[in-house]
Formats: sequence, structure tokens, C-alpha cells
Amino acid sequence: MKNAIDTSNLDVLISEVGPRDGLQSIKDVMPTEAKKAWIKAEAEAGVPEIEVGSFVPPKLMPQLADTAEIVEYARSIPGLQVAALVPNFRGAENAIKAGAHKISLPLSVSETHSQRNLNRTHEQVFEEIAKVVELIRSLPEDQQPGFEGSLSTAFGCSIEGVVRQDKVVEISGKLMELGCDEVGLSDTTGSANPAQLRNMIRAVKAEVGEGNLAAVHLHNTRGLGLANALVALEENIFTFDASLGGIGGCPAAPGASGNIVTEDLVFMFDAMGVKTGVDLDKLLKVREIVAAALPDEELYGFTPDAGYPKDFVVGQGWGI
Amino acid sequence: MKNAIDTSNLDVLISEVGPRDGLQSIKDVMPTEAKKAWIKAEAEAGVPEIEVGSFVPPKLMPQLADTAEIVEYARSIPGLQVAALVPNFRGAENAIKAGAHKISLPLSVSETHSQRNLNRTHEQVFEEIAKVVELIRSLPEDQQPGFEGSLSTAFGCSIEGVVRQDKVVEISGKLMELGCDEVGLSDTTGSANPAQLRNMIRAVKAEVGEGNLAAVHLHNTRGLGLANALVALEENIFTFDASLGGIGGCPAAPGASGNIVTEDLVFMFDAMGVKTGVDLDKLLKVREIVAAALPDEELYGFTPDAGYPKDFVVGQGWGI
Repeated sequence: MKNAIDTSNLDVLISEVGPRDGLQSIKDVMPTEAKKAWIKAEAEAGVPEIEVGSFVPPKLMPQLADTAEIVEYARSIPGLQVAALVPNFRGAENAIKAGAHKISLPLSVSETHSQRNLNRTHEQVFEEIAKVVELIRSLPEDQQPGFEGSLSTAFGCSIEGVVRQDKVVEISGKLMELGCDEVGLSDTTGSANPAQLRNMIRAVKAEVGEGNLAAVHLHNTRGLGLANALVALEENIFTFDASLGGIGGCPAAPGASGNIVTEDLVFMFDAMGVKTGVDLDKLLKVREIVAAALPDEELYGFTPDAGYPKDFVVGQGWGI
Repeated sequence: MKNAIDTSNLDVLISEVGPRDGLQSIKDVMPTEAKKAWIKAEAEAGVPEIEVGSFVPPKLMPQLADTAEIVEYARSIPGLQVAALVPNFRGAENAIKAGAHKISLPLSVSETHSQRNLNRTHEQVFEEIAKVVELIRSLPEDQQPGFEGSLSTAFGCSIEGVVRQDKVVEISGKLMELGCDEVGLSDTTGSANPAQLRNMIRAVKAEVGEGNLAAVHLHNTRGLGLANALVALEENIFTFDASLGGIGGCPAAPGASGNIVTEDLVFMFDAMGVKTGVDLDKLLKVREIVAAALPDEELYGFTPDAGYPKDFVVGQGWGI
């Protein structure tokens, strides 16, 4: 995996996706200045990677219309890896122009979902990916962003229902063949369970190679988000997407709201002695920025409500 | 472990503790008839064990004043293992008189918590336990209830803070030595993390023997409840306490409300293909009884809100 930052001191990489996945699924438009304050504060809390937006047409997603500006701003923050979602080649062009360190292009394993969400068949997405790879390779090496092929609806689809593991494995292989640097697995609909996730990770790694499945994007739709994250940790996944306050979901997957909560994920890892580089005290304070900018949004998270166990010290593990 | 019911077809035993742990920590008193309806419906949903009450002085806990009547009623339900909490010898006498299949006596590993919660030092609790064992052994064998020594605050205390693993191990050994049939570990304050829990289970099993640590009682205070349950499953724990709608907590551990939610736990196990014997469709309907009887209580649970993944079929596993 290519990283624009030094990750050698981390056991896992927390990738905050709230400014993208969170904001795209809510009605309110967060002011650009609030987004910047959020990203800055979260980077200062030690979060090493933030997916700051998506290069989708502003007409479709006015909440993310300022993504180019946000990417440029985020690039100015030292030590932060700036990620962006791109739905297609044109989005990738814009992301690269803005200076994203890392771009992800989602492909729905469920083709029906792909057509509804991205308005493209699998073949059409493959073509876009090939063009993005070509574009990236035409750049000087030090300007090439990392490129993740992200398999959404990998554990179940709200339209097609069951998603077969062999389909996920097949598409993972295809994405690597097309030239992605890595693949990621997204539980877009919050359907994954720990046994399924473990099997899936092993099967995909067997196809693409241990280091090329680096990321999981989990939702907490049915409360299993952290149990799934634990399995991913045990299976040596490095990158964990999460959303501050658990905001987010998928507009094309009704009822599937709720990314795993960054604060609870960091608490779990921190308590376990797993190095995230994140200062949980500071992270919890970032909620105030988001709460003030989105007064109508409910912020989730158990740790923020309950506080720490007595005598818990951030960064020192707990009782192990 | 002694069981009054046939558990040979189960991978895990779900023990519903809502009527005890749930009700003891809320203000409203649930009418006896509603409790009976709840217990009956949950038993009919296939929940094999229910902790139906606690034999504490009614003055201290008016919510549980009808425990003897409830135990007698629950005993009439075929196939249900009826458990009760007892704080001391006198409680155990009453539980046995009422006909409980299984009794648990909690001992707080944190001695300060023990004094505040049970008003007893460790030595005093050990004496009670010895007397309870004597009483049980004086009964004809087929009338002896199972007797669990339950270690509360085993993963952290809201008063003492860190609880040392070697203390938990030592007390576990002592409880078995005194004649308990098994010990259980309770995360009374919702402080446990997966690494700590795994280490603790292994250490306690090394002390008391594989089969003698049978039960965990987990809370979801900081959102880690199901991740912890997953670890317990991996470590071959058989009995999982949980509370319908996640009601409950610990009156002496402020902020530590929230047992793990039975519905989400059963969903996780069911999706993983782990046999619980519980029919999740029927279990979800039991919420209506509790909601009607406790209109002011918030019921937790993600699965009840989100519903099943599309094409999920109860009892068939999901995508694995």
C-alpha cells in the first residue's frame, strides 16, 4: 500500500470518512468553514487519514460541492493523508487536480445497486477504472495518488439480498488486474457478521495477496460494527474507515445509515493497546464542532456518553 | 455445568437477565402480570434460560418484591431454566424454596464495590457462599439448584478503577474451592475490552478448569458489548447474559447502564450460524410486551430498528 504519510508507528490506520460518507447522506449542508475546522481538529487529534469529500456532480450532492476546495485545504495540514471518493474518471481527474493523496472508486458488487448508485454496469465501471489507472500512470511518480478499488455492498445488498463470496473475490481480482493499488471491502448495507467477514477477508486475500486488501468500511446498522472491526483487526486489516458521531450511510441503501463511530472504535483499540496514533481526549472534543455545525443531526457513540472507565488513561491500554 | 434443561442442541446458551438486571435498575415497577407475560413470551421464543428476579429485601428493591411468585410461575413453563440472583444465604434459602433451577451469588472483585453493593467484605461473602453450598448439599440431589459464583466488577470498578487480573483469578479459585458449580465474569461497569476479556477468560480457565468458567455478563456501556461477546464465543464461553432492549445496569455503578441487547446478540449469533435455539422473529415481538409495560423506558437495539438484511432468513446463517 502506498501512503503519503509515515505509518510505521501505527498498528492500524483510522480513516475518518465523516466529511464524505457522513455528510453525503444528510440533508443539511455543512458550511465549508465548519468542514475545515472539523478536518483540522481531527487531524490535530492524530487521525492520520481523512476522506474529505467526493467528486460527484454538485447537482447530485450539493453537500459535497466544495470538495476541491476542501482537498486543497486539507493538503495544507501537515501529516494528514487526504483521501477522496471518485465515482468515475472525471471525478478522478478533479481529485488529482485538487491534490488528493489517495482516491477510492467504489464498485457495487451487486450490479443492480451499481446501476442505481453509480448509474453504471460493472463493465462500465471497469472501463472507468482502467482509464483512471492510465491517468495516474501518466503522472510523475511522486504525484501519483494511491488508488483503491472499493467493493461496496460486499456483504449483502438492500436490493439484491445475498451477495456471493465468489463474486466479491472475482471482482477483487479484476480490480487488481486493472491496476488498482489495493482493494477495500465495504459493508454498505450494514449486513456483515463476524463469521462472514472473516471468511470474506481470507478469501479475498487469497485472491489479491495479503497486503492488497488493506481496508474495511464497516457500518453499525445492526450493532455489529465493532465486533466486525475486531475480526478485521485479527485478520490484519490495516485501514479502518469510521465516522465521527457515526453519521452517514448510503443514500441508495434505505435504512442502512450508521458508519461505525470513530470515537468508539478508537476507544476499543486504545483500550486494547492497539496503536492508532489518535488522542482520544482530543477526538472527543471534535464532536463539539460537528454538533455546532449540524444542530439537527443526532451524533452517535457510547464512549462519548459514558466517558472513560475510572482511571482509564488514553494511550496506555486498559486492564490487559 | 449443571443444567435443568437439555442444552445438547445449542452452541451457546442465551440467558435473559432483563427481568432481574433490567428491572432492578429502573424506577418503574413492572406489574407482576406483565413480568409473567414477558417471561412466557421469551421462553416461547426459545430463550432457554431467564434470570427472573433477585431475592433481595423488598424494601431495598420494590421492583423485585414479587420474585418468589415469578420463580414459581416460571417453573411452570416447560423447557425453561429458571435462574435467580441471591445476595446472601437468606436469599438463597428463599430461591430454593421458590424452586429456582439455578442461583447466582455475586461477589464484587472490587472490595469497595462489594461493601457498597452488598454491604459485605469479601470474607463475609465467602462465609455466605459456604453456607449456601452447605444448604444445597443438604438437599436431595435432584432438588439441588446449580450454583454460580458471579464475579462482578471483574474488568474495572467505578470506585476502585483498575481491577487486577490476578485478583479475579484468585477469587475465582476461591469460589470453586468453596463449592460453587461454576464461576461467571461480570463486566458490571461496561469497562471490558476484547483483549482484556480474552486474557481474563484464559487466566480464569487456567485456574478453575475449562468447563467451570461458563458464563459472561457483558454490558454495552461503551459500545463494545458485542465485540466482547464475540471474543467470549471464540474462547468457548457457553452462557451469555443479555437483556431484552438492553435495559439494565448497576445501581452502584453510575453511568454504567446498558446490558448487551438480547436481540442484537441473537442476530449476531444467528447470522454467524451459531445455534442459540432462539427464534429471532418471535424474540423481536417480545419487545412489544416490555414497551407496553414500561412506557417511559427507552428500549435499545440496532436490529429491531434496522430490521434484517434483505433475504435474511432466521436460523439459516447469513452469507457465510
